[in-house]
Amino acid sequence: MLEEIREQPAALERTLHSGLRRADAFRRIIARRRPRLIVLVARGTSDNAALFGRYLLEITTGIPVSLAAPSISTLYQARLDYRDALVVAISQSGESTDTNHILEKARTQGALTLGITNEPSSSLAALAEHVFLVRAGKEKSIAATKTYTGQILLLYLLAYSLSGAVRAKELERLPGLVDSALRLEPEIRELSERYRFMHHAVVVGRGMNYANAFEFALKLMETCYVVAERFSSADFLHGPIALVEPSFPVFAFAPPGVTWGSIGTTLEKLQSLRAEVVAITDRGNRDAVRRATRVIELPRRTKELLTPIPYIVPAQLFTACLAEQKGLNPDRPRTLSKVTLTL
Amino acid sequence: MLEEIREQPAALERTLHSGLRRADAFRRIIARRRPRLIVLVARGTSDNAALFGRYLLEITTGIPVSLAAPSISTLYQARLDYRDALVVAISQSGESTDTNHILEKARTQGALTLGITNEPSSSLAALAEHVFLVRAGKEKSIAATKTYTGQILLLYLLAYSLSGAVRAKELERLPGLVDSALRLEPEIRELSERYRFMHHAVVVGRGMNYANAFEFALKLMETCYVVAERFSSADFLHGPIALVEPSFPVFAFAPPGVTWGSIGTTLEKLQSLRAEVVAITDRGNRDAVRRATRVIELPRRTKELLTPIPYIVPAQLFTACLAEQKGLNPDRPRTLSKVTLTL
Repeated sequence: MLEEIREQPAALERTLHSGLRRADAFRRIIARRRPRLIVLVARGTSDNAALFGRYLLEITTGIPVSLAAPSISTLYQARLDYRDALVVAISQSGESTDTNHILEKARTQGALTLGITNEPSSSLAALAEHVFLVRAGKEKSIAATKTYTGQILLLYLLAYSLSGAVRAKELERLPGLVDSALRLEPEIRELSERYRFMHHAVVVGRGMNYANAFEFALKLMETCYVVAERFSSADFLHGPIALVEPSFPVFAFAPPGVTWGSIGTTLEKLQSLRAEVVAITDRGNRDAVRRATRVIELPRRTKELLTPIPYIVPAQLFTACLAEQKGLNPDRPRTLSKVTLTL
Repeated sequence: MLEEIREQPAALERTLHSGLRRADAFRRIIARRRPRLIVLVARGTSDNAALFGRYLLEITTGIPVSLAAPSISTLYQARLDYRDALVVAISQSGESTDTNHILEKARTQGALTLGITNEPSSSLAALAEHVFLVRAGKEKSIAATKTYTGQILLLYLLAYSLSGAVRAKELERLPGLVDSALRLEPEIRELSERYRFMHHAVVVGRGMNYANAFEFALKLMETCYVVAERFSSADFLHGPIALVEPSFPVFAFAPPGVTWGSIGTTLEKLQSLRAEVVAITDRGNRDAVRRATRVIELPRRTKELLTPIPYIVPAQLFTACLAEQKGLNPDRPRTLSKVTLTL
């Protein structure tokens, strides 16, 4: 897992290089087809990437996005009207049965279909009309890391095809930002020791980093067996915050920018409850330091729209180091296998 | 909280009675406006009702549904294209700031708007073009119960306006089904003692009962301070099941019908891991008894489409009784207030 986390700058570089050409071509198709709705279909970590895509695409394009609930087609046999839709299926292996089922049905209805996968010869790549490839190389660890950031990068490229709000020049900075985030590894290894006996936690994020809260929590569950909840800071304050007692561990994605108001209020509240807060932030947000028990500070400042990829890196490192501290093997979590077939 | 749980048959009866006329009138409006997309906007427990609505409406109408992410409008100021949409805002108090903000914006864009609320004189009722009222009477407990089932009932009535798949005759059975579910109270009180020292749990559901898993988990968090995760059985098997060790408590909505294949497989897996499983089911599903540690069996059998309301009742009772066992006051969870204003 640690090795694959470290491979991310190179993987992102390769994915961006080949993806940009694809995205330019896809832009011409979009100009003809003009989707009125975007549907994202995925499971597991890929579904967390889809959740990111939901925010990015609505914010940058104004086209409404729906995250598909696969059982509606697979179990209830409902036939959804996806005629004017762009349906995007995301799967590392490209062999997720229900994801592929929905994509196939949408294509027969005349929807524009796009597959995002790590595997060029997968069923997904064959079923989708268009394909964006994550060029991360084989992912060996069951805990997905480099394919998650690769999928996110391709969602930026999809937004780039659809709107002028995402620029190629900006995306080119991402591999370097990840590289600098990776330099936090020794510091995070040391920090992780403190959480050796953590059995539960809450992860909060908002907006562009909401999906990262899901992804960090999923990694903590899968590889460290921590019962990790994930909430937007808004939903957390609406009810689940009742859980929090002194020393309750909360991890927060706290970049500077439009979400800081909401995250900052949450941290203030948590401070008054004497919770243990770990904030992931960067140098642009000195306020976060005052409101957290521990801070992981990314060395380079980033525009909020681009935070999700560099900000997940310390969370990935933390999870891998914590699994080590707990004497677990993050590459082979108990009970799991890499491809899950869904009933 | 217990009192309000017990008021549900009467509240549902009243809500159905006045709602049916509204729904008939709304059907004529729908016939003229023909929405191509349905957007549901809500927070907290109302958001769990919206999650139910997502499944119900896609299954019965084939119209794609998107669950709004409020921050996209409120923090990022994105302008979503909701012109052909039906935008439904759901709020017990009708004073949820971000829910109202999105409804208002959608209406100025020309979207068809519907408000579902308990408060006829609320801001939401004034902002929405059309209103369906939950006639549950004042909800005093901070933990919402009768307004949740009331909101769900009104979502059935919305589906009834949109499609022939939901029939008034069937909905008329719901108050009686809830009444018979309430008879489980003594049995559930006894069962709850076993969970006196439960500190974490997972709740699983699928399809029509997926939202109930969210709602049960939220109640366990808010009123019993149990760190309660919620997953679809499909997503659970994809990763978080790694959490499970012997005696790990899992609650499962396990009605007979199309979701039983998926839930049943999950229970089988959990049995092999020696987890502690509590299954909520009815007499139509004898299989559930074999695969669970404890079973809560609803006295009357129900068509799967109608399970969500009667099936949440034992979960509500369980939460109220468990709070009692733990010596907590479920009406006044620490930290919370009834109306949450979102930044």
